Amino acid sequence: MKIIVDALGGDNAPATILEGCKNALAAFPALSLVVTGPESLLSEAFCAPEQASRVEIVHAPTQIRMDEPPVQAIKQKRDSSLVMGLELLKAGRGDAFVTCGSTGATLSGALLRVGRIRGINRPALAPILPNKAGTGVMLIDCGANMDCKALNLQQFALMGDIYMRTIMGLSNPRLGLANVGTEEEKGNELLHEAFPLVKGLPGINFVGNIEGRDVFDVDICVADGFSGNLLLKAVEGTAKFMSGLIKQELTASLPRKLGALTVKSAFANIKKKMDYTEYGGAPLLGIDGVVLKGHGSSNARALYNTIRQAMGMVEGQVVEKIRQKLEEQL
Amino acid sequence: MKIIVDALGGDNAPATILEGCKNALAAFPALSLVVTGPESLLSEAFCAPEQASRVEIVHAPTQIRMDEPPVQAIKQKRDSSLVMGLELLKAGRGDAFVTCGSTGATLSGALLRVGRIRGINRPALAPILPNKAGTGVMLIDCGANMDCKALNLQQFALMGDIYMRTIMGLSNPRLGLANVGTEEEKGNELLHEAFPLVKGLPGINFVGNIEGRDVFDVDICVADGFSGNLLLKAVEGTAKFMSGLIKQELTASLPRKLGALTVKSAFANIKKKMDYTEYGGAPLLGIDGVVLKGHGSSNARALYNTIRQAMGMVEGQVVEKIRQKLEEQL
Repeated sequence: MKIIVDALGGDNAPATILEGCKNALAAFPALSLVVTGPESLLSEAFCAPEQASRVEIVHAPTQIRMDEPPVQAIKQKRDSSLVMGLELLKAGRGDAFVTCGSTGATLSGALLRVGRIRGINRPALAPILPNKAGTGVMLIDCGANMDCKALNLQQFALMGDIYMRTIMGLSNPRLGLANVGTEEEKGNELLHEAFPLVKGLPGINFVGNIEGRDVFDVDICVADGFSGNLLLKAVEGTAKFMSGLIKQELTASLPRKLGALTVKSAFANIKKKMDYTEYGGAPLLGIDGVVLKGHGSSNARALYNTIRQAMGMVEGQVVEKIRQKLEEQL
Repeated sequence: MKIIVDALGGDNAPATILEGCKNALAAFPALSLVVTGPESLLSEAFCAPEQASRVEIVHAPTQIRMDEPPVQAIKQKRDSSLVMGLELLKAGRGDAFVTCGSTGATLSGALLRVGRIRGINRPALAPILPNKAGTGVMLIDCGANMDCKALNLQQFALMGDIYMRTIMGLSNPRLGLANVGTEEEKGNELLHEAFPLVKGLPGINFVGNIEGRDVFDVDICVADGFSGNLLLKAVEGTAKFMSGLIKQELTASLPRKLGALTVKSAFANIKKKMDYTEYGGAPLLGIDGVVLKGHGSSNARALYNTIRQAMGMVEGQVVEKIRQKLEEQL
């Protein structure tokens, strides 16, 4: 199993990326890595003999920054760690590609350099959030496609279902369409068209339309990329806003501070349960290869989890399963 | 000041509605009410002489249920408490109308029976959520319009700005467009068209595009009704999900329970700060009259707050100000 890692992607690159790589190598004896980035930096990082033998360094001197126009960056920075990594995946030099770099550049790069699975019109970015079941809910799409067609939503449903069965081991994942109400006739024109298409997919446990508040009650939530992104970030923002309020209140006085100490472990548990980096990064489903986008602010633990997730997608043959399902159904 | 109240709207009607009415009458000596609902029930409720003299009862024997098709219900149930209330507002028999009934029926009814402000293409439902500033953020639109045009978003911005200045007393409310990123070129086709229109509004403190997580950092968040509704309910759902986790953790063992007791007041404060019924209900901005939709699950306190909010909108002449601004600008 060989995973390609972009050493220069993310707010904390390269330090946390390299640390995450080392931890993954230590944890998984069958893992080897291809790491893209400046050669001198990487050869120094992986100088220990045991690890050096399992790491291939591919020199990529430049970085695509978070604020660069994605398509332009992909076309111009052919020697960047991101583009080189995607080219290596396309060339079959590794089984999967992991980056914590710019979402836009990763999406454009994956489309331009790796391409789509035949039959998939639009790939989707599909992060996993905590849910009530504790196994996570996939939010697909979360920002890859701004103006979607009903067919796109149907394909998101198909891909999300395969992922949650294969990687999360759910035998019958509940899939909902993000909408303003639960009744079939609710929503905008897109949802009116998408509902019967998703309902018509064989073998899908379609629970119907769900509201923004119900996202924690299902296993897959299908949305267009615009609404899905707003939904995802509203969840993030609300969790952060509430955490801020809690912190403020629990440190408001000395008695409160002392009281808070007695329930410290409770808040550590809550934090862990709300931490979506535990699930790894967001797969780009629909790309003809395993591409995973870790959170920009990923720490070593998050990168480690994303590598582990990539290994799972390769072992579970998620891309092959999507291809096969498309041939059967669409 | 005369407020029309629908006694049969909401999950807890009529009991909590009537209690809220009584509390409002007790608190505001200049207030009088017109209450629509079954006569016998209402005359019994307001039998105390002091209150009876300030309450006009208009017999409306039927109720529009939450699950009825809105337009059909409005057309057929002309003797319902909702339709009667809207007719009274239209006829000038009161200064504002308050209901906690079906959102769809309230919207359809307000459009069909009261009508729009001349120049407003689509009225919007605009609830207020807690924000970091503590003065609340208006989310406009939250579900009245599924497929919006750029002009609608511009008008939402104009109306939201007037409301937050007039009712919340903000001198320069920060207004953002809900989008997937903060850069001007981000978003779907609708947002690309809407950005320059909103930017071009004179006298608006337009902070640009905002992400779902930034909604707590502004005073007005403009969105199409579909995305706005998902955003609103994602905020609600996340707050509820986190509250559930906190409760679960704080009651997981006896030491935890005892520890939690010592910080009980902190959680009471947080609950109060997250309680959006403190801001009242959601105004239907763009309707040619003051119409307020309280939350379906409103308790007496929420209904009281919604009546107070209606009084503020009448005193602040919000409808007249919108009309005037449209004549000046559009």
